[in-house]
Amino acid sequence: MDAEAKNTEGTPEAWRDVTPDAARRLMTAAVHAFAERGYHATTTRDIAGRAGMSPAALYIHYKTKEELLYQISKVGHRFALDILEGARDGAGTPAERLAHAVRAFVRWHAEHHTTARVVQYELGALAEDHAAEITAMRRASDGAVRAIVEDGVKAGDFDVADVRGTAVAVLSLCIDVARWFNPHGRSTPDEVGELYAGLALRMVGAAG
Amino acid sequence: MDAEAKNTEGTPEAWRDVTPDAARRLMTAAVHAFAERGYHATTTRDIAGRAGMSPAALYIHYKTKEELLYQISKVGHRFALDILEGARDGAGTPAERLAHAVRAFVRWHAEHHTTARVVQYELGALAEDHAAEITAMRRASDGAVRAIVEDGVKAGDFDVADVRGTAVAVLSLCIDVARWFNPHGRSTPDEVGELYAGLALRMVGAAG
Repeated sequence: MDAEAKNTEGTPEAWRDVTPDAARRLMTAAVHAFAERGYHATTTRDIAGRAGMSPAALYIHYKTKEELLYQISKVGHRFALDILEGARDGAGTPAERLAHAVRAFVRWHAEHHTTARVVQYELGALAEDHAAEITAMRRASDGAVRAIVEDGVKAGDFDVADVRGTAVAVLSLCIDVARWFNPHGRSTPDEVGELYAGLALRMVGAAG
Repeated sequence: MDAEAKNTEGTPEAWRDVTPDAARRLMTAAVHAFAERGYHATTTRDIAGRAGMSPAALYIHYKTKEELLYQISKVGHRFALDILEGARDGAGTPAERLAHAVRAFVRWHAEHHTTARVVQYELGALAEDHAAEITAMRRASDGAVRAIVEDGVKAGDFDVADVRGTAVAVLSLCIDVARWFNPHGRSTPDEVGELYAGLALRMVGAAG
């Protein structure tokens, strides 16, 4: 999508644990290829070439292009879910936990906007069983944010008429950072995270 | 992207004025093809076939695939800009104008989510001069929302530390509706618009 993005984004932190190194390199190559031309216009040959490997070497790690998209999507969603469940289960008031969730979630979508775009926009290309697994992870992410909002309402700290819709809106605001964030723009990922934490607290009517 | 979307969305209201009828049919066919497979994986032959026309008949109206994307993008952005500038220049308090802008902008992104996704996610495929024209329209959209927020701050109705960042956030919240909106889901476009108008007023710290 944006040609510059590929040069400003290294291997996402979320993929540190992907081994062996060749598998991780293929995931990185696939993300950049999908982001530039879309999933359907990308061939496994394109991906192997970007990773400096042969199609046969790719096949050792991933049997199909869809398998690569699935791994990218799964690792990305796992990382997002860890952030949100960590915030839900962490210490602090509901307001502190919501602010923490938003800061970390925004930072991830800004720093890894190329990966996040692939993860968010190519869901329709997943095979049925893979899509079901990713959908379950997305529901869990929604649920983690909803739980923090519910905690705040119960504690009398938040004032929210539509808890489900407001939780979706907070997550949506964070996710869309991946679409518009420009690493050469006026705000750093941390600055956007800080602004958005404040906006999210206003959205839930947090006192203060 | 989602296979069901294509059946729930007719010709966008924004394209009423596209003539002749064949040109409008080709735009609709192109949107659905781009949404399903991505711009780069779609051929002009695919688009002509969906519209029940020959590639030669397509060529009478659009010289290239990029020309079709550009027309889709231009009409979509023109419609969005009309909504936002209409709200900026309309009657009412800044709070009323912001709520009006958000309601109408959300409704458009929900009702025409397939078109909106193509408009929002395929910008990178536009030719340089077309991209420059669309970027100018996007800046004008940002500016219209920013002007409403500035009016509210000047009037003492809004409490906003970062006017530019907050205006971007309000627009971003609306745009992302196109990503997640499901016409078979629990909320209608009007219901999401109403919820989001309230959330936007909270984001700008509107009294009340």
